[in-house]
Amino acid sequence: AAQKLSGGIGSKLCGMLGKERGWGWRRRGNLLPATDGDTKTMTFLQEVVDILLAYIVESFDRETKVIDFHYPNELLQMNNWELQDEPATLDDILISCRATLKYAIKTAHPRYFNQLSTGLDMVGLAADWLTSTANTNMFTYEVAPVFVLLEYVTLKKMREIIGWPDGRGDGIFSPGGAISNMYAMLLARFKMFPEVKEKGMSSVPRLVAFTSEHVGIPDLERRILEAKQKGFVPFFVSATAGTTVYGAFDPLIAISDICKKYNIWMHVDGAWGGSLLMSRRHRWKLDGVERANSVTWNPHKMMSVPLQCSALLVREEGLMQNCNQMHACYLFQQDKHYDLSYDTGDKALQCGRHVDIFKLWLMWRAKGTIGFEAQIDKCLELSEYLYNKIKDREGYEMVFDGKPQHTNVCFWYLPPGIRYMEDKEERKKHLHKVAPVIKARMMEYGTTMVSYQPQGDKVNFFRMVISNPAATFEDIDFLIEEIERLGQDL
Amino acid sequence: AAQKLSGGIGSKLCGMLGKERGWGWRRRGNLLPATDGDTKTMTFLQEVVDILLAYIVESFDRETKVIDFHYPNELLQMNNWELQDEPATLDDILISCRATLKYAIKTAHPRYFNQLSTGLDMVGLAADWLTSTANTNMFTYEVAPVFVLLEYVTLKKMREIIGWPDGRGDGIFSPGGAISNMYAMLLARFKMFPEVKEKGMSSVPRLVAFTSEHVGIPDLERRILEAKQKGFVPFFVSATAGTTVYGAFDPLIAISDICKKYNIWMHVDGAWGGSLLMSRRHRWKLDGVERANSVTWNPHKMMSVPLQCSALLVREEGLMQNCNQMHACYLFQQDKHYDLSYDTGDKALQCGRHVDIFKLWLMWRAKGTIGFEAQIDKCLELSEYLYNKIKDREGYEMVFDGKPQHTNVCFWYLPPGIRYMEDKEERKKHLHKVAPVIKARMMEYGTTMVSYQPQGDKVNFFRMVISNPAATFEDIDFLIEEIERLGQDL
Repeated sequence: AAQKLSGGIGSKLCGMLGKERGWGWRRRGNLLPATDGDTKTMTFLQEVVDILLAYIVESFDRETKVIDFHYPNELLQMNNWELQDEPATLDDILISCRATLKYAIKTAHPRYFNQLSTGLDMVGLAADWLTSTANTNMFTYEVAPVFVLLEYVTLKKMREIIGWPDGRGDGIFSPGGAISNMYAMLLARFKMFPEVKEKGMSSVPRLVAFTSEHVGIPDLERRILEAKQKGFVPFFVSATAGTTVYGAFDPLIAISDICKKYNIWMHVDGAWGGSLLMSRRHRWKLDGVERANSVTWNPHKMMSVPLQCSALLVREEGLMQNCNQMHACYLFQQDKHYDLSYDTGDKALQCGRHVDIFKLWLMWRAKGTIGFEAQIDKCLELSEYLYNKIKDREGYEMVFDGKPQHTNVCFWYLPPGIRYMEDKEERKKHLHKVAPVIKARMMEYGTTMVSYQPQGDKVNFFRMVISNPAATFEDIDFLIEEIERLGQDL
Repeated sequence: AAQKLSGGIGSKLCGMLGKERGWGWRRRGNLLPATDGDTKTMTFLQEVVDILLAYIVESFDRETKVIDFHYPNELLQMNNWELQDEPATLDDILISCRATLKYAIKTAHPRYFNQLSTGLDMVGLAADWLTSTANTNMFTYEVAPVFVLLEYVTLKKMREIIGWPDGRGDGIFSPGGAISNMYAMLLARFKMFPEVKEKGMSSVPRLVAFTSEHVGIPDLERRILEAKQKGFVPFFVSATAGTTVYGAFDPLIAISDICKKYNIWMHVDGAWGGSLLMSRRHRWKLDGVERANSVTWNPHKMMSVPLQCSALLVREEGLMQNCNQMHACYLFQQDKHYDLSYDTGDKALQCGRHVDIFKLWLMWRAKGTIGFEAQIDKCLELSEYLYNKIKDREGYEMVFDGKPQHTNVCFWYLPPGIRYMEDKEERKKHLHKVAPVIKARMMEYGTTMVSYQPQGDKVNFFRMVISNPAATFEDIDFLIEEIERLGQDL
């Protein structure tokens, strides 16, 4: 069906002329900016788009494999990937595009559950194509007037949702959650010791940051007191809203009380869980987030915005600029003819900053806040369905007690052969090998993908997460059937 | 012409049915993953592509404005940019796309000279569209098999060009030059004091890094000795290959001798100038780069790869992994069924990493190394043409002596009224205001864009840079005429 639907100029010309008739435009390859390159360029780009449209339709088709897996050494030999001195023809470029997609993971596939970021939103994709076409940089209003305004509008909206009065505060989109969290630490350090910017780390006492390992910060206050007793200065607490493996939420109100008492910057790492703020049914899990000094929130995870899209929101205005500005006078001239508060470049350590805002903004327009809410609620419903389905099912054991807080469902599948093993150590050793083998088989068959890992003294278990808006109850059923099909002989 | 050429399914349906006939698919907006969303999705995406293709053709047309400039407050009112609770129609989404492009800077325009990154390469753009469609993450081979291989192939090629034996070494694509340089500093620090990773900054002596302010590191050795005398530890020298404003190259061989003598990590920041390595005519400016421990090289600048594309190349193998790895067992399982050396995620502080490789790789295929070389040589030729044209022209003064090393040409334009002012201070004060006013007028007319700035005791001057493959000799002539037209009354 995909092939038939993929229309456009390119494939039509192709139909009319046939390959034999000679593709002068391809061989010569005079694309824009060549004089009279218009037609050639549009034909070429349309051919690429036709390839992409066919790939998209295929990706959502459950009859298609999630992945056509090959080992690295095999894949290296399946195409000519080497770079040459001489140019290739445009025909070869189209072949390279097809080969690249042939061996890619279909991250839009309804049965792709492998990461926190899954799925492919059509409006988000269109927005990302537009972003590439605009090909600019976020550092000044001068070179990105619309994108800078949309970042302003969107960050304000996100701060309102966090609960800061009138959406006041500051923020920035950064290249990912780790960088957003790093920016938060820099702000906390600068807030407490502004001299660090000019005088360096040797001008400040020994700083200590705290974060939860997996499930809450139960003994935070004790740890803070211990650190202070040793002469260290606790300056930063990163509470997690949605841990990567268990999807657990730290108790933000209790943590904020402690941070207030000891005058410590409170950061909420909501890279994974922050999106629950958009759900009236689930946002209570982040109660207290409005007391945070800063929040990381990655719309590329639970909101399925194309990669990357990570926001750092900051309660105090002006701090980012003071902390990071370098006054690069070749970018941030002070005698420009417009309102300089729209030149955001000095808020970040980075100079250039990729345009990550448009895909989020356009998706938000298309769905509305209620559309994101419905999408998020549906993923949590699916995960509850999975949890209810397996919690008492023969051959399954849950990794942690109780209903998951996020869409993370962590479980062991025990093949019949090891279900009744008496020797606990032997059983553990066997079980540790089950998930990796099932996963490898999944990839070889290409039917579905889900993540696994060990954790502490727990042997390899499956971590199922659902952020894919294409997934349905039937896909969850399929996953369980597939695990049993691929694992029953182990 | 653009309008006529923009074909594809969408506009054809539009022509056949007319807007009045009702656009059910748009109002309902059931795109994929909705059942039977295929046709609607392809029609929608094709409509977006038609908008983009028309924009691209327009962007290269010299009759088109580079920018339709509006002040931030005006622009905020020219469209409804606010985010709503309720979804918008797909019609509204298309309107938003058109509005966004209407007020965007046409960075592909042959007369856009405003930044180090200009121009729009058609193959690079196609590759970026494909990257968005593949929507994955660079951290593991598991989720990005092809892209990980292409990064491997391309980094090796870049290291060969630097001159490291057999292209051996390591590297990574990062979100920009500043982050690449930061990674280099982390490596240098870790190499000298591996304990810093576990024990923090308080476990190491006071470290000092050196970099050139604008034009070379003339007194580097003296500064190193001074620092050592104070008890500090020099650990990092960042030599610049192509400064942002002057385009100057530090003497790498001399610097490498000093670094070797004092056992200091030598980094080359070639974000801007690194691409000259691809030119047999110009690569001598980086002689000695092969002695560096690490090199930053941004193909999104002089090679016109779509934003962002920045590489950090590292001479020592294995160091990146040791320095940055966190062993996140939920990503980098040690019992996977493929060669784990292709899981690159632990080389970076970031967890997720955007796919920036495909656009560079595909452009390299399309042009060949010789194509990049020709493109770079042409930009340098244009800049020499500009330099020769204005160096003795009435009303111009050059900011630094001699022929520019890169494509940066820095100059003052003196309107007739101030050319013969006797009072030097008065003249300086006047001159300082000339470039900002000309620039503001350029943006209001939308005819061209070029950067300006003050530097040290030098009042505002124009910094012309050429990285735009669409620019011609005529465009350089146009720029000069335009500066004179807009500035003669000042």
